[in-house]
Amino acid sequence: MIDQNLLPFQFGIFRADNLEQTCQAIKNMTIRGAGAIGAAAGYAMAQYFIGAVIDKNLEPERAKFVIESTRPTARNLFYAVDRVYEKGLLSPGSALEEAEKIADEDAHCSSMIGEIGNLLIHDGMNILTHCNAGWLAFVDYGTALSPIYKSFESGKKPFVYVGETRPRGQGARLTAWELNNMSIPHTIIPDNAVAWIMSQNMVDMVITGADRIAGNGDVANKIGTLDRAILAREFNVPFYVAAPTSTFDLYCATGKDIPIELRTEDEVHQQTGPDEHGVLRTIRVTSPGSSAINYSFDVTPAHLITGIITEKGMIRPTEAEILKLFADHI
Amino acid sequence: MIDQNLLPFQFGIFRADNLEQTCQAIKNMTIRGAGAIGAAAGYAMAQYFIGAVIDKNLEPERAKFVIESTRPTARNLFYAVDRVYEKGLLSPGSALEEAEKIADEDAHCSSMIGEIGNLLIHDGMNILTHCNAGWLAFVDYGTALSPIYKSFESGKKPFVYVGETRPRGQGARLTAWELNNMSIPHTIIPDNAVAWIMSQNMVDMVITGADRIAGNGDVANKIGTLDRAILAREFNVPFYVAAPTSTFDLYCATGKDIPIELRTEDEVHQQTGPDEHGVLRTIRVTSPGSSAINYSFDVTPAHLITGIITEKGMIRPTEAEILKLFADHI
Repeated sequence: MIDQNLLPFQFGIFRADNLEQTCQAIKNMTIRGAGAIGAAAGYAMAQYFIGAVIDKNLEPERAKFVIESTRPTARNLFYAVDRVYEKGLLSPGSALEEAEKIADEDAHCSSMIGEIGNLLIHDGMNILTHCNAGWLAFVDYGTALSPIYKSFESGKKPFVYVGETRPRGQGARLTAWELNNMSIPHTIIPDNAVAWIMSQNMVDMVITGADRIAGNGDVANKIGTLDRAILAREFNVPFYVAAPTSTFDLYCATGKDIPIELRTEDEVHQQTGPDEHGVLRTIRVTSPGSSAINYSFDVTPAHLITGIITEKGMIRPTEAEILKLFADHI
Repeated sequence: MIDQNLLPFQFGIFRADNLEQTCQAIKNMTIRGAGAIGAAAGYAMAQYFIGAVIDKNLEPERAKFVIESTRPTARNLFYAVDRVYEKGLLSPGSALEEAEKIADEDAHCSSMIGEIGNLLIHDGMNILTHCNAGWLAFVDYGTALSPIYKSFESGKKPFVYVGETRPRGQGARLTAWELNNMSIPHTIIPDNAVAWIMSQNMVDMVITGADRIAGNGDVANKIGTLDRAILAREFNVPFYVAAPTSTFDLYCATGKDIPIELRTEDEVHQQTGPDEHGVLRTIRVTSPGSSAINYSFDVTPAHLITGIITEKGMIRPTEAEILKLFADHI
């Protein structure tokens, strides 16, 4: 996997040889993003069944629990682990096959989300995104960025406002890096500038990803998504969420049922980046002696969301439309 | 003046020996905050008249213009320069006297704002503030933080959520440092966490400062203030602005007339702070090759503001109440 903690200043591949290393990589965000977490977690479960695990005494159910405990919010993680676990009980080979299938599906869904989302994008549109839901966050294409990529490939000229996404800066570091690589025009804005640029009619559309979507259409996503949804409504800017159906969790009736990860406050206090000589340094950016709170996600209520772009089509965030999406599985 | 660019990691006094040095200190934010900028600008104007100026050929009107060009948004700057200029045309001594009077008035107004604002604060209230409008930003006490200080001194137990305030981190660096010094319980939140903590009923009140207030009650303040005002209304949290009457600009009919400063994008790309050995380092925190936009302020429309706390009392942000505030001057 690409080591996302090194980006955009260094590019490195992290090789996780066993379940324990894969779990550690998910926990410390070497790999991050709903789809990428899901794919990695699926492979971690497969690693267990093929014997790539340090603790040889681990029971299968316990191994499943260890993987599920890495990060609590992203639905894709539980979805992938469940599927690989079922197959692993039959044979190690079918566990690995299932993990590969999940990764392939993730890339396919992302591509479809791009095609469907592209229909919403007009030439020259100014699009605000938050965090990173691009190809780094998934197996390929991504979710929020996939429609932007497809629109650019099809000759439209989107302009992207990239929200910095403190504390970890996934927008400023990862989304900006992806867009740079694709030569898509964009600029970084501090998280505080969202209302102001909307009030100046600089934003035509917001697209974000999702980490878990409840049965009623409430969406858990990177902290700050709720702020943007409320501000978008204030300024009559359409607010879209892009996510594969594997992100929906019908066991969560509403957003209140979604667990919200609280990460270490050090992520708020410290920042890492290259100094003027290119040497990576970690510095303190907050007043020593003060504490900080670091919720990793928030929940946006369904009524603030214009539409959810899935690989099966765009839906309104209502219980009825979500159930219809899963009708063929029931 | 306290060198605010060094805080909270180092404490240093910057001595500005002439008009040019004072202007540079205002521009590069060695001194910052509406009241502190005003007081410094008043002294800069006085420095001109007493001959503490490098360019001895500078005409008085040109000197006034040079000071006014340092930062465009804060009303207090123009207010102070106007007053000292008028007196300076009479005699150098009365210019200096006027600059000192303005600084004293600023401290007195801040103290009064604290007393009046304290009436709004109940014991144990959770208060969100943005940027730094404390005693660093004024000659003493400050505006947004003054009611918090007075409530704490009077035995109430406020808890303060300190918004980080990217890109320059005045909340995380300066407000947190002030509150630490006063032993007032507080925690730092990333700018993205405002909606989420409000949705969890963790915030009872918002207080911010102001850099300029238009005749209709629209308020220019640190970028991100507009976001907080909209979010506060969404969650029924009262939103107060604290500012002395010297911040009002009746020449600006509405917020549209207030010039908004656009600062260098480097402030978004770079962060400075101590590494693990305490050595100050400047690092890049955004993807190399990407641009950034750095509006320093935004404008919050009057209808989103519960009340404006001035040294003359709390008013509703309406043209009528603002005119009444100035009735004795007209």
